[in-house]
Order: sequence, then structure tokens, then C-alpha cells
Amino acid sequence: MELRDEAIKIHKKLRGKITIKTKANMKTEHMLKLLYTPGVAEISKEIMRDKESMYDLTWKSNVIAILSNGTRLLGLGNAGPYAALPVMEGKAALLKSYANVDAVPLCVSLYSLEDLENFAKAIEPCFGGINLEDIQTDVAYFLYERLSNNLSIPVFHDDRHGTGIVVLAALINAFKLTNKGKEAKITIYGAGSAGLGIAELLNAYGMKNLIIYDSKGQITEKRTDIKNTYKEVFLNFISSETYERSDVLIATSGPGSIDERMLKNMAKEPIIFTLSNPQPDIPYEISKKYANIVATGRSDIPNQVNNVLAFPGFFKALLKYKIKKVRKDIQIKAAEAIAHAVSNLSYDSILPRPFDKNVVKNILKALKS
Amino acid sequence: MELRDEAIKIHKKLRGKITIKTKANMKTEHMLKLLYTPGVAEISKEIMRDKESMYDLTWKSNVIAILSNGTRLLGLGNAGPYAALPVMEGKAALLKSYANVDAVPLCVSLYSLEDLENFAKAIEPCFGGINLEDIQTDVAYFLYERLSNNLSIPVFHDDRHGTGIVVLAALINAFKLTNKGKEAKITIYGAGSAGLGIAELLNAYGMKNLIIYDSKGQITEKRTDIKNTYKEVFLNFISSETYERSDVLIATSGPGSIDERMLKNMAKEPIIFTLSNPQPDIPYEISKKYANIVATGRSDIPNQVNNVLAFPGFFKALLKYKIKKVRKDIQIKAAEAIAHAVSNLSYDSILPRPFDKNVVKNILKALKS
Repeated sequence: MELRDEAIKIHKKLRGKITIKTKANMKTEHMLKLLYTPGVAEISKEIMRDKESMYDLTWKSNVIAILSNGTRLLGLGNAGPYAALPVMEGKAALLKSYANVDAVPLCVSLYSLEDLENFAKAIEPCFGGINLEDIQTDVAYFLYERLSNNLSIPVFHDDRHGTGIVVLAALINAFKLTNKGKEAKITIYGAGSAGLGIAELLNAYGMKNLIIYDSKGQITEKRTDIKNTYKEVFLNFISSETYERSDVLIATSGPGSIDERMLKNMAKEPIIFTLSNPQPDIPYEISKKYANIVATGRSDIPNQVNNVLAFPGFFKALLKYKIKKVRKDIQIKAAEAIAHAVSNLSYDSILPRPFDKNVVKNILKALKS
Repeated sequence: MELRDEAIKIHKKLRGKITIKTKANMKTEHMLKLLYTPGVAEISKEIMRDKESMYDLTWKSNVIAILSNGTRLLGLGNAGPYAALPVMEGKAALLKSYANVDAVPLCVSLYSLEDLENFAKAIEPCFGGINLEDIQTDVAYFLYERLSNNLSIPVFHDDRHGTGIVVLAALINAFKLTNKGKEAKITIYGAGSAGLGIAELLNAYGMKNLIIYDSKGQITEKRTDIKNTYKEVFLNFISSETYERSDVLIATSGPGSIDERMLKNMAKEPIIFTLSNPQPDIPYEISKKYANIVATGRSDIPNQVNNVLAFPGFFKALLKYKIKKVRKDIQIKAAEAIAHAVSNLSYDSILPRPFDKNVVKNILKALKS
């Protein structure tokens, strides 16, 4: 059966990848009295006295909102909030299945920074965290910056932070297999949420020779068109070199965006990550002609760079340890933890499989302060 | 153990009355491919082509939002969204447990009509219905009116519609035990969401002799202070009589608000519903001196008028039969269905127990068109 037909068949059968489950028997007089009226009023009163008691008395300590408007959905572009729901259900199912985090998809028809900010602030009382997903970068970047400074619950921008963590994990292991290290020359081709998350985390890890491209060319201080956009952030961590003889190429700029000549001009023992989905930035077979270590976003090719390696365990840690902010140091610890979960390191195995139990376990251990 | 201690103990143990459950095994390559990337993109594309396909391909067909800001919480008044969460979790657990409806508590720090309206519109893509709970009446009334005319999913105002349904059910059975009927003189004491829902539904059922009081006295056309408030609605169905010799008294105006003299002045074989929670509007023992049929909101006294008799089954029917609007005729059918679920009708048994399976079954049967 074709993928499309099989996917539709199973989605029709399931009618949703998640469901609600009650944690107690609600069908006795006694339980109704305790868990509903009049007992629940005592819980409300307790929370009125001490808001923090919510973390012990409700599901707040373990539930996050997955907030999306679908304006940058997978490889589909601006697909909107309706089409986003099956994807966010999938992320919720992964959070539950891999890390026992409760997550609720909130796919909203809100598009401006202000509207999304107000929405996120409004739901703060009833969630322990917010995961921003598939929102176009120019909005999502500033949304994260505002929320992370103003909310009492952690906010995670998966396309940025999650991708950064998994790419750093992959690179840590790729370096172990080559004669390369933090001084490597790294070209980041694509300057959306993923490119940003990768650049800022590699820089924080100590990789200072970064060259970054967006669709208009190399990002340098001379570029006037990036003034007052999130892309100004890149200016904090770029080298003035050009891409030739790069040790590493990390592409997130869309299927077909990379020309083979670029691969030809790389340094010895190059490392190539072409992460666009569902098709990589240049076909895998071509990358393999030039590099031993190639990673993509696909599950049917070795070395899948998949955010699911990061977000379930990372969110579990944020909730469990009551971490309020996605700091660079904990992102780095998570990346190292994921890298260490690989037991048989090889060119075709620089990352663990998504459902390897050690992934979440290692992240939780690493982030325990 | 005292109720408070026992309630806190069990809430601390549960840490939430609901949780998320996955409906499929997410831990194989094959399922990841179908339910996450790349398969889920095919589902998103399907929804982009045909939005209605969501009802078959996601959990939308069976999930509602319980929207509250806690401004009129139980007997606690304006307790706010944080204190509302354990209550809304309880309602979600009841919806799941009694009618297999998935429900997500959204307790929000939004207070104006406009902000709540925008929020509800924003979440329309990802929910199959919205239940408005414990929002102060002057906002909730207009919120419902606006949403029910502008959203493509059903909206239910539990304090209004749910209470109306259960009170009508109780009255239908109370009339069977007395020599009273639709022509009965009925005083509705309290003109909040509950009073409104009761008055409009009894009127729609054909009970035209209604006398309504708010905290300032009887509501009549002479009252200038209700102009441009939701209370103007009451003017559509009030009689010009006064409360003396009422056959039925239905109080929703708060503990202690009813004076015993009022009960003394009722007609023969009076029916008394004192529905305020957690304490009735006048102590049960006093009502019992005057009436054979007394109902309250308490679970430890016979004849509990509890919205849980209505909202789980009613919402299941709205979702199952894709009913977009809470029309009076289906509210009446639901009330009759609840009334018919009582097998041993007596003065102390005019309503079914909340967890009687026939309640939801009868409602679903009655609303199947």
C-alpha cells in the first residue's frame, strides 16, 4: 500500500492519536464527593491560598500546550491551524509515549505576534509549559523572546531549540569519528528557526567558525536587509570567512536548494547534514559520494536528525526539575546526553533511534542539577 | 477524616484527575512513519483539501474545550483561573467517564467579553465543541450568544443550559407525583446563569406562569436597572403575578437567601428546589417541613440537581450527531430523557443518580434525529 493510503487508513481507524483518560473512578458517591462537588471546592480554596499548590493538586505539573498556527508546517509551508492538528496530535503522542508528558494540541487561528502572545499568556494558569511548533520564524522568534521573559512556565521553541540540540548531538558524535573538533569550519545553509537554533547552540558549545547563508546569500554585517529582523541575531556568531573548504555543511533550506558544486568544495573528511523534510536539500546518494557521514531528516536513511530525540525528554526534565528557562547550558547537556546514548558509534550510526529508552533517561540524568 | 483533608490527600496522590493516553504504539519505525513524519504530512494535505475530513482523521470529532476564567466558581465567587483548574479537570473526568467525551480544561486569565470571544474563536480549529463554565453571567450570556452565531462548532453554557435541562427533568417528575402541571405557578428566585437557563427552558416547555426575582426584587417591565443587561431576556417570559401561592419555588440565589415566610406562603403540595451550593438557599430540614418534594444541589441529600446528569450525555449527542446549536427543542428532549431514567419514582427519587448508565443512553436515544 502507498504511504498516503496507509496513513489515511490508520488515521481513520484511530480518529485521533491521543485521548483523555481518567485517573480515578468517578462512578461512586464517595469519589464524586471528593473529586467533584463539594470536595473539589476545598482544592480550589487551597489554590486560592497558595497558587503553587497547583503543582501538587492538579495535572499542571505534567501537562504542556503544543501551540501552533500551522504557518510553517513540515514541508507544507503555510498550511494553517486545521492541517496542523494531526501533526500536533502526533507530537503529543510522542511526548506521552516517550517521556510520559501530557500534551494538548492547541492549533489556533492567530497570526500576529501580539495575538499569539496574548493567547499564550492567557493559558498560563492551566499548563506547566508551552511548546511552540511550526510557527513562521519571524513571529516565533519574537514570541519566544517575549514569553520566556514574561511567563512563569517554561516555553520551548521546538523548531529552534529542539533542532539545535539534536544537531549538536549528531556533530559531537561525528567529530569523534573524524579528525575534527570545535575549530571546524561549519557552513549553516538556511537561516530559519532551525538554522538559528543550530547556529546559536554550536556557538555556545564553542564552535566559533560559523558561516551562515539565507536565501539571499551569506549573512554578513554588510547586509542591510536583515536589520530589525530576527536574523540580526546571527551577527553575534558569524565568522568573516566564506564557505569554501568547510568541514561541515548543515542545510535546512529546502529540497533541492544545495548544488553539488558546494559539496565538491568542502574540506577533507566532510560531514554533511541535509535536514530538510520530507526530501533532503540534495539527494542522499549525491552527498554520500563526497562524505562518509551524512545525516538527513528521513527515517528510512541512516542518521535521522529528528526532533523527537530532544523534545520529549527535554520537556520532561523542564517539568520535573521545574526549570523555567531554556538556557544554552542545559541544551548542551541534553545534546551530550543524546550523543552518549549511541552505543555502537559508526558513520551510519551517529544518533540513537528515536525510541531508544536511553535517550530520555540520559537527558533526565544530565539535567538533574 | 474531614472532607477537606481527604480531598487534598487524594488530589495529591492523583496529581490531576485526567491524563493523556496514546491510541497507538508510537515505538516502531513503521508507526512513526505513518503517524508522524513523513506519513502525517499526507493527513495534513488531506485536511488542506477538505477541512471536514478532520472529523475522520483527528480527535476533533470527540474533543471539547472546557473554557473558564473562574469568575463565578462553585460557591466561591470570583476565584480566578488557577483555582478553576481542579474543578474543570473534574468536569473533564466526568465527561470521559460517563460519556466517553474527551475534554481539555482551558482555564484562562481573560475577563472581557471581547478577549474571551477572540480566544474561543482562535481554538475552533482544534476542538469539536466548547463548554463555557463558571464565567460570570453578564459576560457568559453575551459570549454564548456571539459564539453560537459565529462558530462552526457547538457551544454549551453549562451553568445556563445544563441547569435548565436538569431542573426541567426534575420538574417533569415532580409533577407526576402531584396534581400539578404546566399551568403551575413557578417562582424562580435568582436571576443568574442558572435562573436564566431554568426560566427560558420552562417557558419553552410551556410553563407560562413564571415569577422571577433577582437580588433587587421581582423582575418586571418597570425595572429600569436591567435595561441593556442580559436580564432583559427575562421580560420575554414573566407573568405579572406575585410569588404568593406559588406551586413551585426554584432558588439559585445563594445560601441563606430564602426566608421561611416565603415557604409558608406557597400553594398546597408545594415543590421546593433550593439549588445553591455547597449550602442550599434555606436549610433542607426547613424546606421539608413544608414540602414533600425538595431538591438541592447536595449529593448527601435525596434529589440532587447536578449538572452532571446533563452535560456528559448532551455533549456526546452534540458531537455524535454533529448538532451545531443548543436549541430549546433538544434541551427539552434531553430533560425528558433524564426524567425517564428514573425507575422508582418517589418524593425522594425524582432524578436518577449521576452514574446511572441509562442517563447518557436515554439522552443519546432522544437526540438521535
